Amino acid sequence: MDVVSKLSQFASTVSAKENKLWGGRFEKSVTDCVEKFSESVSFDKVLYKQDIIGSRAHATMLAHQGLMSESDRDAILRGLDEIQTQIEDDRFVWRTDREDVHMNIEAALTDLIGEPAKKLHTARSRNDQVVTDLRLWCRDAIHQMNACIKKLQVALVKLAMQNEGLIVPGYTHLQRAQPVLLQHLLLAYVEQLERDSGRLIDCSVRLNFCPLGACALAGTGLPIDRFMTAEALGFTSPMANSIDAVSDRDFVLELLSVNSIIAMHLSRIGEEWVLWASEEFGFLIPSDAVSTGSSIMPQKKNPDPMELVRGKSARVVGDLMTLLVLCKGLPQAYNRDLQEDKEPLFDSVNTVIGMLDVTAEFAENITFNKERILQALPAGHLDATTLADYLVKKDIPFRTAHDIVGKSVALCLSKNCQLLDLTLTELRDLNPVFGEDVYEFLGVEKCVNKFSSYGSTGSDCVAKQLFQWTSKLDIESNNKN
Amino acid sequence: MDVVSKLSQFASTVSAKENKLWGGRFEKSVTDCVEKFSESVSFDKVLYKQDIIGSRAHATMLAHQGLMSESDRDAILRGLDEIQTQIEDDRFVWRTDREDVHMNIEAALTDLIGEPAKKLHTARSRNDQVVTDLRLWCRDAIHQMNACIKKLQVALVKLAMQNEGLIVPGYTHLQRAQPVLLQHLLLAYVEQLERDSGRLIDCSVRLNFCPLGACALAGTGLPIDRFMTAEALGFTSPMANSIDAVSDRDFVLELLSVNSIIAMHLSRIGEEWVLWASEEFGFLIPSDAVSTGSSIMPQKKNPDPMELVRGKSARVVGDLMTLLVLCKGLPQAYNRDLQEDKEPLFDSVNTVIGMLDVTAEFAENITFNKERILQALPAGHLDATTLADYLVKKDIPFRTAHDIVGKSVALCLSKNCQLLDLTLTELRDLNPVFGEDVYEFLGVEKCVNKFSSYGSTGSDCVAKQLFQWTSKLDIESNNKN
Amino acid sequence: MDVVSKLSQFASTVSAKENKLWGGRFEKSVTDCVEKFSESVSFDKVLYKQDIIGSRAHATMLAHQGLMSESDRDAILRGLDEIQTQIEDDRFVWRTDREDVHMNIEAALTDLIGEPAKKLHTARSRNDQVVTDLRLWCRDAIHQMNACIKKLQVALVKLAMQNEGLIVPGYTHLQRAQPVLLQHLLLAYVEQLERDSGRLIDCSVRLNFCPLGACALAGTGLPIDRFMTAEALGFTSPMANSIDAVSDRDFVLELLSVNSIIAMHLSRIGEEWVLWASEEFGFLIPSDAVSTGSSIMPQKKNPDPMELVRGKSARVVGDLMTLLVLCKGLPQAYNRDLQEDKEPLFDSVNTVIGMLDVTAEFAENITFNKERILQALPAGHLDATTLADYLVKKDIPFRTAHDIVGKSVALCLSKNCQLLDLTLTELRDLNPVFGEDVYEFLGVEKCVNKFSSYGSTGSDCVAKQLFQWTSKLDIESNNKN
Amino acid sequence: MDVVSKLSQFASTVSAKENKLWGGRFEKSVTDCVEKFSESVSFDKVLYKQDIIGSRAHATMLAHQGLMSESDRDAILRGLDEIQTQIEDDRFVWRTDREDVHMNIEAALTDLIGEPAKKLHTARSRNDQVVTDLRLWCRDAIHQMNACIKKLQVALVKLAMQNEGLIVPGYTHLQRAQPVLLQHLLLAYVEQLERDSGRLIDCSVRLNFCPLGACALAGTGLPIDRFMTAEALGFTSPMANSIDAVSDRDFVLELLSVNSIIAMHLSRIGEEWVLWASEEFGFLIPSDAVSTGSSIMPQKKNPDPMELVRGKSARVVGDLMTLLVLCKGLPQAYNRDLQEDKEPLFDSVNTVIGMLDVTAEFAENITFNKERILQALPAGHLDATTLADYLVKKDIPFRTAHDIVGKSVALCLSKNCQLLDLTLTELRDLNPVFGEDVYEFLGVEKCVNKFSSYGSTGSDCVAKQLFQWTSKLDIESNNKN
Repeated sequence: MDVVSKLSQFASTVSAKENKLWGGRFEKSVTDCVEKFSESVSFDKVLYKQDIIGSRAHATMLAHQGLMSESDRDAILRGLDEIQTQIEDDRFVWRTDREDVHMNIEAALTDLIGEPAKKLHTARSRNDQVVTDLRLWCRDAIHQMNACIKKLQVALVKLAMQNEGLIVPGYTHLQRAQPVLLQHLLLAYVEQLERDSGRLIDCSVRLNFCPLGACALAGTGLPIDRFMTAEALGFTSPMANSIDAVSDRDFVLELLSVNSIIAMHLSRIGEEWVLWASEEFGFLIPSDAVSTGSSIMPQKKNPDPMELVRGKSARVVGDLMTLLVLCKGLPQAYNRDLQEDKEPLFDSVNTVIGMLDVTAEFAENITFNKERILQALPAGHLDATTLADYLVKKDIPFRTAHDIVGKSVALCLSKNCQLLDLTLTELRDLNPVFGEDVYEFLGVEKCVNKFSSYGSTGSDCVAKQLFQWTSKLDIESNNKN
Repeated sequence: MDVVSKLSQFASTVSAKENKLWGGRFEKSVTDCVEKFSESVSFDKVLYKQDIIGSRAHATMLAHQGLMSESDRDAILRGLDEIQTQIEDDRFVWRTDREDVHMNIEAALTDLIGEPAKKLHTARSRNDQVVTDLRLWCRDAIHQMNACIKKLQVALVKLAMQNEGLIVPGYTHLQRAQPVLLQHLLLAYVEQLERDSGRLIDCSVRLNFCPLGACALAGTGLPIDRFMTAEALGFTSPMANSIDAVSDRDFVLELLSVNSIIAMHLSRIGEEWVLWASEEFGFLIPSDAVSTGSSIMPQKKNPDPMELVRGKSARVVGDLMTLLVLCKGLPQAYNRDLQEDKEPLFDSVNTVIGMLDVTAEFAENITFNKERILQALPAGHLDATTLADYLVKKDIPFRTAHDIVGKSVALCLSKNCQLLDLTLTELRDLNPVFGEDVYEFLGVEKCVNKFSSYGSTGSDCVAKQLFQWTSKLDIESNNKN
Repeated sequence: MDVVSKLSQFASTVSAKENKLWGGRFEKSVTDCVEKFSESVSFDKVLYKQDIIGSRAHATMLAHQGLMSESDRDAILRGLDEIQTQIEDDRFVWRTDREDVHMNIEAALTDLIGEPAKKLHTARSRNDQVVTDLRLWCRDAIHQMNACIKKLQVALVKLAMQNEGLIVPGYTHLQRAQPVLLQHLLLAYVEQLERDSGRLIDCSVRLNFCPLGACALAGTGLPIDRFMTAEALGFTSPMANSIDAVSDRDFVLELLSVNSIIAMHLSRIGEEWVLWASEEFGFLIPSDAVSTGSSIMPQKKNPDPMELVRGKSARVVGDLMTLLVLCKGLPQAYNRDLQEDKEPLFDSVNTVIGMLDVTAEFAENITFNKERILQALPAGHLDATTLADYLVKKDIPFRTAHDIVGKSVALCLSKNCQLLDLTLTELRDLNPVFGEDVYEFLGVEKCVNKFSSYGSTGSDCVAKQLFQWTSKLDIESNNKN
Repeated sequence: MDVVSKLSQFASTVSAKENKLWGGRFEKSVTDCVEKFSESVSFDKVLYKQDIIGSRAHATMLAHQGLMSESDRDAILRGLDEIQTQIEDDRFVWRTDREDVHMNIEAALTDLIGEPAKKLHTARSRNDQVVTDLRLWCRDAIHQMNACIKKLQVALVKLAMQNEGLIVPGYTHLQRAQPVLLQHLLLAYVEQLERDSGRLIDCSVRLNFCPLGACALAGTGLPIDRFMTAEALGFTSPMANSIDAVSDRDFVLELLSVNSIIAMHLSRIGEEWVLWASEEFGFLIPSDAVSTGSSIMPQKKNPDPMELVRGKSARVVGDLMTLLVLCKGLPQAYNRDLQEDKEPLFDSVNTVIGMLDVTAEFAENITFNKERILQALPAGHLDATTLADYLVKKDIPFRTAHDIVGKSVALCLSKNCQLLDLTLTELRDLNPVFGEDVYEFLGVEKCVNKFSSYGSTGSDCVAKQLFQWTSKLDIESNNKN
């Protein structure tokens, strides 16, 4: 019996396992262990919508180019509609022996409409198909993340609006440094998130080129129109090099990098709010709606959501690391390793969305403990630098001024008092330039009012920034809640 | 109405949401967004077995110490049995509003047996409970991974036994370097895996101390016996410092580090076998049972499992990175961030087990293409170093010998021949010390036979190593399949 | 004796160690161990140029705003010139007891010009100063990296021009897939590098805002003009929030992320060229100028530079991870941890520049072994997909075509021949649709000529892409060397 | 002119550049760019001592085995002594054109003693040489790190001894949880460091096998005695597989993993001490000897060393990631990529040593602010869990007790008082089981005294632990400083 006949015979006797779509030259099915290890449908099925949209565009183009009849196209489009409905109604049976989302949908389509389905994969490979799906998914994800960023920015700006005039200690090295308006601190977060958003947008612009039609890696000799599918799918244009199109995952890496920076920013807010919610700081009171308790210590009320935000930044970084290790040293073009790009991508995006949402929810459910903050302000000599500026205005070189104020602080420490408690005599002993007007510069409130440089914590400066953000974010300025 | 009454009233009107077990001082439930973000039961339920074993040991100890009646204990043990059966029969309803595996089981126990269940959490906190569960889980995981390592070692040794005498090119810089026995190369992998196993064992010894009884972080004043629970759970002894017990996750980090090294080792086998399965090398033929095809290119037969092994090493590294970022800079003792230790741990262990299994399965389903290998051996001047050794034996200093052989190779390149094709005259032109006996050192077979140093690729040396491994791994030496 | 007097006395008796510039309130110097651990001048001195440029702009603005006399300003500018000359002539003495580049330069300026130098730090902190320097440094680095990318692109395009018409196997899963023009593969690299360049540019646009004047974290009450310094230093505008200005390092993270992607791209070229330079592939011959030998094996010629390119990608990733771990969970604003941002940044940039340069040099020093490539092409049934396209053109549904070709390949395997060796009878036995014209689609050369889709490997398509790149990169098209 | 003559001629005309030791078959030197990119001597020269020790052992063995005369051996040993002296006197000229430490020393030896030096590389390759050096270096590094760990443990135990009886708040979620003895917290760090030390020792045991004699990758046919060199260098035995010996770097990965865990532990101490040194906590006062100031804010005193300890943990993690990325996917045996293993290794070890030393120095230079701590203790209801234990002792099921205490805390919150301020009537309103004896359980001091479980914070328990540590670490118990 010749090989071909044997193959046919073999194919016809396969019953337990479906002949894979690529099975022509294969005599034996893969082992269960390999099938389980290799399948991706358990996680890549979330791409079903992008996969169906892509197939619709592809079939439409094939028909337009005469590579498929209009009736075949219509059968395919109707079949894909039906499959999408089944999936969304949770009636679709995902089969791991069909490997991935692409094969599951194509095979189901074949089950559903028969012959026409066999034409769908004309001038297409899973190599260009998966990366088309993935780019569409990332584009959607970026859109959604940007909405979450804006939501968090709005929550932060509203929180700022609710706390007009509240002065808090500003820290460097976690040591009290200078007094700042709480609004100013909250707007610092908003600035950081705005850059995050900018990075996401850059990423979405750069990834918005269409790999469909690159086929396995070399393109095709069939008369397809890649510009037509690219346009139908909302891409800027088709990618210019078919090998690059199927090989590269730098758009995933770029997105995961951007996500790591977002996550890092949120981890810092998390750290700060966990600190501020401690008994020792006592500046921030989370409502019960965003706190949890202890199974053993009845008195505990923990700011868990922000601890988790801080903690979850770790997995976003881990996901990026995974993808970098994955891609390192792979030859062109597609390698099966690349299947592993999806889980870290999905996890990173979902985690960041969760972190943004919870941070916004936390921001909407905290109050600042003005009493505690007010009590805290006198400690730490927050007005020392302003005092140095006073001396500079009196024509003392800054280094000398710094030294004089250093000695003033030492005097306060020895007397256990604040700078504004020093008498003019004491100050003049340190340097005769001190005058009565020095007391206009001491104490945190006067001190904050002195700031005037662009971007500083001075009330006017902050008000201007706040106004710009409320405009930009479409927040009504008289609505403080 | 006073606060306490209000609290009682509030508690009684809660219906949609169960009052959390820590809810005493709380007036409001957490929002859905926070609940969803914070829950861990969707992934930590895999700890159910360890959690139940731990609770059994804890209840038994409490009863022994008079902190619980024997009948309460018996009710608890019976209840836990019932719950375990429900879980294993997939009849147990996991509830995300009950947060985690611990609360789910304890609350279900309360639903089941009532009052006695309320005594189970005596002298225990989720802080020590979760880390006890986790150590038990890791101990089991290490046991299982070590079995997988042994299975792979056996597969590699058997593969070596099946390929006695087969010489392959040995590479450095992916350039042909010296001829080696394939057995020697396969045993190199076995050595690496043996060190991996040693690291796992060290890890399991070090983690085998019992945190149970550390409670929230400070221990307890109730008369518990931590040595009794430690012994019941197979731990070496209780941990000596309660704060350390609940704070530290270095055992998870150590395990994930060990896993990263295993994964790195497997990625190197993956790379090598993917190379060897290429048309260009052509040394290795995977059977259909461990290959896959292409959806577009009908002639393709790809060694996907080993590409995936190589690729999946990335997530194991990513998981380690996640845990390192997670733990960095956390103050003692428990912080909610630590909840995020589980998913990377589970993923790392499961991935490594899958990688080990698939690599073993691949090893059992490949054949080496002796014909192609034999054709390949003459190229690359693999006998050049042995020729230099020949000269050293003739008292030529090694550096001089290296230079003479370098010129011999240059001569071969210019003549497009092998070293053994050079005439004695040609060799003597390069150096008069060459004699007829030089031809005993040329050609890969003679060359391999010359190796004699301990651990070298000489046939006798390799046979000894192979014998040691078959003994150590309990493989019958006459069974080559 | 009062505290202030004691302090003065203390200050005057210090001789071994200079009183630090911040020493006013300090009674004791730091220990040697801490000084050595804390100093940054050993690595941040590379910022000297940016630091001096920044100080020049700052002094000019201070004078313009009346915060410093014109003569003081002139003394400062002259002093800074002198210091820059000293540094560039390697005559400047860097002192670790002066901590960092900023303090070294300011203290040296004070030594040089006396009193006026004490006014330079007016309305400035090291917090805004260092991050201004760093942004300037990154901007310069990006400029330099972009030049290196272009140089490598030019080298690759020239290599393509030198190898017109050369067909090589295209791979997926490192298995031969379809024939492609070498030019097409080389242009895939060029595409990837172009996106890298785009990312660098986005990064440089986003970082180009000026933190100077944010001072410690809150801005200042002195009448500075931040727009003036921003403009003088070539920044788009001053940063809008002073806390954000000194806290954030996302621009470093973004640059290190971009670098990781570049490094990943280069690691893939490295892998591919190492493979191609192997005896087994034999497609690529590096010249001696870019190869190294072995200290023991005289016949070896190793493509070390590309192995190192592949290997060095690891440190670029490591540098990114360092910075992500560093920033995670830091509260606003400046924390000393941030000092650790510099070494990974410098290492990443220098490594990527080295990798780009060496890859370009390698590209300029390789030849492709056309003879070996030509011999290799028949193996692997590279024309199988084109054969399937032939059937599709005959109205066979693609899936059916795929199956027929799969059987054709199986037949070839059993006969140990190529597809074009099959007789028309044999083909018609598989499917009667085959006609004489099938032989126009078989064999790699005919096959490559069939490709016609946009971005495909068809000769015309590639020629168009090549033309676009030679224009874009200003390469004269008749200059093939 | 034939190739060999041309080669000789070429070799003789080389003057600007030395003919590399591997240069026999090479016609052209590498370019400057490649030489600079490839050299490693700028960083691997720190291995000089290990390299010389290894060469001494190797030469001695060669002579013993008759592969070298005794006079040649003696010349070599004397030459190596001279070179070591030159290096240590800083008189040795390191040349990058000699690539690495090995070639520098061998070439210098040849310059110094002539012919005999050419025999040193007999039966040795740089592949086994470098990895022998590296294992010796790691062994020394581990020894040194373990001494640093012990030093830090001693500093922590002494700090504990100086603060007998001091109660501090214990935290979970950075919320006050239960009172603990400061000693107990400090001993938690000591426990963690002890496990770190155990990991280092395991690593040193596992790496202590000798690769020397594995040569390039296959061993040798020369009659060497690998057991003799292994013993001379203090290794347990020679490595059993020559390919494994030169390929694997898992010992570096293991060491870098262990270092990452150490660094993580230290980052947590760093975080905690930075928190405690803040104005808000105010528990810890670093002396001036371990603090730094601000260039702009004269009042600042920052705990920089511990911020840097926290920050430097990042580079230790980055170094580990570098090595994991580096090794991923490399085929056996040596690849030039592996040259990149050294800088991360050296950086990791040096950084960890610095971190350990500075943390010890910090521990020796802090005082705890007992007054502030005492003031702080009443807040946070630290005795709530002990109160629940009281109820458990009265036979209230724990869950019920937890709920009662939760309500007690709610009552305190509404009255703004502590638990011990509640009257017996108030308590009995919550539950009639409360008796007069309840006040024996309230207030942090009584509360701490109640702890009695093994490993708990009870005074006796902690005293026992402290005694064990002073014994283990050889600290005299009556010496509290």
